[in-house]
Amino acid sequence: MTDVITHHPRPEQLSYTFGGTTEPAERLNPGDVLRVYTEDCFGGVVRSVKDLPSQVVRFPFVNPVSGPFYVNGAQPGDTLALHFASISPARDWAASATLPHFGGLTGTSHTATLQDPLQERVWIYDVDVEAGLVRYHASSIDLTIDLPLDPMHGTVGVAPAAGEARSTIVPDSHGGNMDSPLLRAGVTVYLGVNVEGAMFAIGDGHCRQGAGEVTGAAVEAAMNTVVAVDLIKGVSTPWPRFESDDALMSTGSARPLEDAFRISQHDLVGWVSQLSGLDALDAYQLLGQAGRAPVANVVDPNYTMVAAIDKRYLAGATAYAGVHERLRAVGRQVVED
Amino acid sequence: MTDVITHHPRPEQLSYTFGGTTEPAERLNPGDVLRVYTEDCFGGVVRSVKDLPSQVVRFPFVNPVSGPFYVNGAQPGDTLALHFASISPARDWAASATLPHFGGLTGTSHTATLQDPLQERVWIYDVDVEAGLVRYHASSIDLTIDLPLDPMHGTVGVAPAAGEARSTIVPDSHGGNMDSPLLRAGVTVYLGVNVEGAMFAIGDGHCRQGAGEVTGAAVEAAMNTVVAVDLIKGVSTPWPRFESDDALMSTGSARPLEDAFRISQHDLVGWVSQLSGLDALDAYQLLGQAGRAPVANVVDPNYTMVAAIDKRYLAGATAYAGVHERLRAVGRQVVED
Amino acid sequence: MTDVITHHPRPEQLSYTFGGTTEPAERLNPGDVLRVYTEDCFGGVVRSVKDLPSQVVRFPFVNPVSGPFYVNGAQPGDTLALHFASISPARDWAASATLPHFGGLTGTSHTATLQDPLQERVWIYDVDVEAGLVRYHASSIDLTIDLPLDPMHGTVGVAPAAGEARSTIVPDSHGGNMDSPLLRAGVTVYLGVNVEGAMFAIGDGHCRQGAGEVTGAAVEAAMNTVVAVDLIKGVSTPWPRFESDDALMSTGSARPLEDAFRISQHDLVGWVSQLSGLDALDAYQLLGQAGRAPVANVVDPNYTMVAAIDKRYLAGATAYAGVHERLRAVGRQVVED
Amino acid sequence: MTDVITHHPRPEQLSYTFGGTTEPAERLNPGDVLRVYTEDCFGGVVRSVKDLPSQVVRFPFVNPVSGPFYVNGAQPGDTLALHFASISPARDWAASATLPHFGGLTGTSHTATLQDPLQERVWIYDVDVEAGLVRYHASSIDLTIDLPLDPMHGTVGVAPAAGEARSTIVPDSHGGNMDSPLLRAGVTVYLGVNVEGAMFAIGDGHCRQGAGEVTGAAVEAAMNTVVAVDLIKGVSTPWPRFESDDALMSTGSARPLEDAFRISQHDLVGWVSQLSGLDALDAYQLLGQAGRAPVANVVDPNYTMVAAIDKRYLAGATAYAGVHERLRAVGRQVVED
Repeated sequence: MTDVITHHPRPEQLSYTFGGTTEPAERLNPGDVLRVYTEDCFGGVVRSVKDLPSQVVRFPFVNPVSGPFYVNGAQPGDTLALHFASISPARDWAASATLPHFGGLTGTSHTATLQDPLQERVWIYDVDVEAGLVRYHASSIDLTIDLPLDPMHGTVGVAPAAGEARSTIVPDSHGGNMDSPLLRAGVTVYLGVNVEGAMFAIGDGHCRQGAGEVTGAAVEAAMNTVVAVDLIKGVSTPWPRFESDDALMSTGSARPLEDAFRISQHDLVGWVSQLSGLDALDAYQLLGQAGRAPVANVVDPNYTMVAAIDKRYLAGATAYAGVHERLRAVGRQVVED
Repeated sequence: MTDVITHHPRPEQLSYTFGGTTEPAERLNPGDVLRVYTEDCFGGVVRSVKDLPSQVVRFPFVNPVSGPFYVNGAQPGDTLALHFASISPARDWAASATLPHFGGLTGTSHTATLQDPLQERVWIYDVDVEAGLVRYHASSIDLTIDLPLDPMHGTVGVAPAAGEARSTIVPDSHGGNMDSPLLRAGVTVYLGVNVEGAMFAIGDGHCRQGAGEVTGAAVEAAMNTVVAVDLIKGVSTPWPRFESDDALMSTGSARPLEDAFRISQHDLVGWVSQLSGLDALDAYQLLGQAGRAPVANVVDPNYTMVAAIDKRYLAGATAYAGVHERLRAVGRQVVED
Repeated sequence: MTDVITHHPRPEQLSYTFGGTTEPAERLNPGDVLRVYTEDCFGGVVRSVKDLPSQVVRFPFVNPVSGPFYVNGAQPGDTLALHFASISPARDWAASATLPHFGGLTGTSHTATLQDPLQERVWIYDVDVEAGLVRYHASSIDLTIDLPLDPMHGTVGVAPAAGEARSTIVPDSHGGNMDSPLLRAGVTVYLGVNVEGAMFAIGDGHCRQGAGEVTGAAVEAAMNTVVAVDLIKGVSTPWPRFESDDALMSTGSARPLEDAFRISQHDLVGWVSQLSGLDALDAYQLLGQAGRAPVANVVDPNYTMVAAIDKRYLAGATAYAGVHERLRAVGRQVVED
Repeated sequence: MTDVITHHPRPEQLSYTFGGTTEPAERLNPGDVLRVYTEDCFGGVVRSVKDLPSQVVRFPFVNPVSGPFYVNGAQPGDTLALHFASISPARDWAASATLPHFGGLTGTSHTATLQDPLQERVWIYDVDVEAGLVRYHASSIDLTIDLPLDPMHGTVGVAPAAGEARSTIVPDSHGGNMDSPLLRAGVTVYLGVNVEGAMFAIGDGHCRQGAGEVTGAAVEAAMNTVVAVDLIKGVSTPWPRFESDDALMSTGSARPLEDAFRISQHDLVGWVSQLSGLDALDAYQLLGQAGRAPVANVVDPNYTMVAAIDKRYLAGATAYAGVHERLRAVGRQVVED
């Protein structure tokens, strides 16, 4: 029997950092399934086109995460496996916005310019889970566009190493705000454990997101999410990895963007080499022809890229002793119950 | 009747720059179709795993292009449309390699380090056009992997502006060595004309390529290619754009990689805005949720990214007065003849 | 009468993060002077050319700082002023090293490459405070070179905002490991306060350092340092600033390096504008012709640049109501006593 | 007897590229001295605060250079030595400006943003050669500031390799628009020869410039300049180098800025190693403690940094067989005549 833990945090229970907290929201065992509610990145207060984030959001308290969750037995040097069995929008609307000096096509706090900021503007999307659509409403002309619903979590991570605590806005080797559209239901996330209990947390649901999240915000939504949890003892994972039924994926988060690319490709060269028996140069050559490099975000304090390879090119190779397949089965059963 | 011009250059007719040449290889009229042979990036001299590029290639004479082709009537401020009707490997083998201090996971001439270079190594691929496959042969263990054949051109461009001549290794606003896997058959490339006659050229065929071309070389091959040519008078195009049956794509080539991202997304915001009537912020928001950002290369003197949006989200919009559809029909007829 | 607080931490009292600690090492009042001992970045264990850091240093416990110090009355939104009255090497030797995958001319954890690391090597310098020299001993040939002693602190900062805790290796808007040779005796550092008590700390003494700290380590030394402390209530400082008798300086820490440049220049444009009455464009123009841009580090997790302008071009302007002059007088008296 | 060649180009004789021209402005022998007039970067047409560059300058015809000059006997693989004996402003005024989407604190064509451009504004400086001053006039308030006259050339270079021609706006391994304040009278510039005759050119005089040239334009002026020319046969120089009486300097031009830093530091490690007999790691360590990293420009198509070391730390080492000392003597004599 799988234990299913349900966690629906009150606003004051939400967290705004990875690390820095010793009191977990819940304690889980490897093998448990977590049903968790996550609030949107605005804390749920951007509800109409008149709710400008700079006026209604209490900075720096943005991008709340649910957690942290303590995993019994997790020690530094282990790997935490989180299989996202389902991600479902909790409301029939979602919000997006331009934010002053934040985003991909504007000067920012770091790419500092003397120009005036872009206009702050909010878009409210209709969310139709039945139809599998979100509806964009233009603000400058009378136009709506239906886009496929494709729910994902922008933020998932563990407490960082070296005693650090990082804002939930930041993606780095501990995970965090990676904002990859590939982190959707059906995917297992592998995170290296840095502190006892791992202290993982999840947030920042998106009904969908373009590559790069260029506007600075996706179709931001509260989510009801089911996660199957497991622990791989004695195996370390330096940067977050994803596994789907079809592909292996390494992530890198850094600036400039080519370093995010390099980290992710370098990690995948090593992973492919280890799984296939190819030496590093052979794995590098294979990635050069068969690899993918899906862009996650080009707006957060670190940019995130993913390096991916289809499993069909790695016949017979099984990552992390097949934990993805096991968790998928567990998760599916809980979701279907 | 469509005029079909065939050009199979002798080695001494190949070009190594965009611009800097006043004598065209051929003169074409808008509406003509070009059948062109292109040599591989090594000049065809890397034929076995013993042919190390540093020994057999005569630097800087790498990445030869066929051309330049003079288009009658082309003037600065016009746009050249090149529809790739077909791209077919000319041999049953293709080559790839690691090159000293070139590639995505090594120090380079510019990311200068004091470390020893990676080992130089060559891989020869079998090319099976019938089966639609290229076969990778590992060098460190006894392993072959079949990958889908997906022919493309890494290099296409026109003479640059401002009297410049650029090595064919470089991608920039004139096109050049963009190395995007999306530049495959069925795609129309739009290039802003900078000099009388446009002086376009094509080369660097790849049987396939991973995103980023991280090894520094793709599955490099000579190609027989069919291109339908047209001219859009009085319409300028600041950075190369692609159009397929399904998508509109803008490119950007720059360092760091985020600037390539910014250029491409910025151009696509403007293009979408112009085609749809959305204002810039609305187009930006739409791209933030529906845009794609396929990585082209992260190894050349400038890195290249593509920004893409599916046409289905831009109902009714027709780019460049429908030249893509027209050229596709012309090209298909020539290919089928 | 100035209160002088002396703090010589035992090894177990050293800190490895800014933020994340609630228990201060000492509590100070504005106006106090702190005499503090700081250990070197290796924790004092690299004492001969045989002490390779990768073998003798207990990662991640590098770059220890003395502190944190709680300043009574300091609140978020205030500015802490730390005047470095003197910085004196505590030993007659100092150490430097190349570290695997760390430094300016090597691939790193983030600029990830597949090449072998550079050789790890240690250099021990003689320190002659009387003569004002450090002596470099070459390892490959029999050669010594005398360089001027120019003591500085690589690391000074406060607890970060937003509940973050950052490794002492990292420079950011809270200060930290900026590694600027300009942070020498005679300089006042201004730091925006993010938490009650400010919780500042100091470490990473260098007998001298080249611009960029390209090797990854400077002439690393334990220091005896005298700091005069003050608080500017109700005035915020977004990024660390320095003031000497001759110049005003803003810092920026980010990647890529141009963003560190932009942050520092942008901050100095604002500071000059505020002090001089020039509008932003006039201040920008003045910096364009009279500004300096001393490079601090190009090796740490963020790179650091300084933007500087000589006070003589800002006749009559006094920064932070003259706190630099006041603290200099206080500090000098304590040092001379 | 030294031959002195005088060249005062008519406007139509000015050049806008390095390379791409086969007809030299003059032919010189090694050992000759050139007296050359250079126009300012605006072509001399920005003469009052009402002359906005976007209205009066005929883009892309900006940054004209005088030349190219053919040096008899120069062959690829040689090094050209240009000693700047004197640089004198040709007028009693000079101009600067903000340019739309160009500069260090604004979005640009490549760091593409959707924000409105900064206001375009012109500043006219008084130039007083006798007093050694340039006078800044604020535009927003009634304020003037006297700054030291410190004439330099922003642009000097040779024809590039590989058949390229580059806009005079671009700095790269052939030299070009490096915009370093260190390229002042008394300095010898070493440039690797790429084509027969070297085809060097000079332009873009600045009465002075801040580090980084953050505004995008310096105190731009026409200049009368004296250059002593020599040729070092059979010695190649991969990136431009400078030598003054006191220091050796390597340059690097690239994006991101850390790559310009890496190129310059890497070249100086090699140069110091070769001159001193230190191995590469020893030279790297020495630079880490004794090196300087003066920023040149952070606004041009490539950013430029200089790596410098004082000659006093390299006792007895003589670069390029003492050509700097020889040319200095020659140049001084011509200037004094």
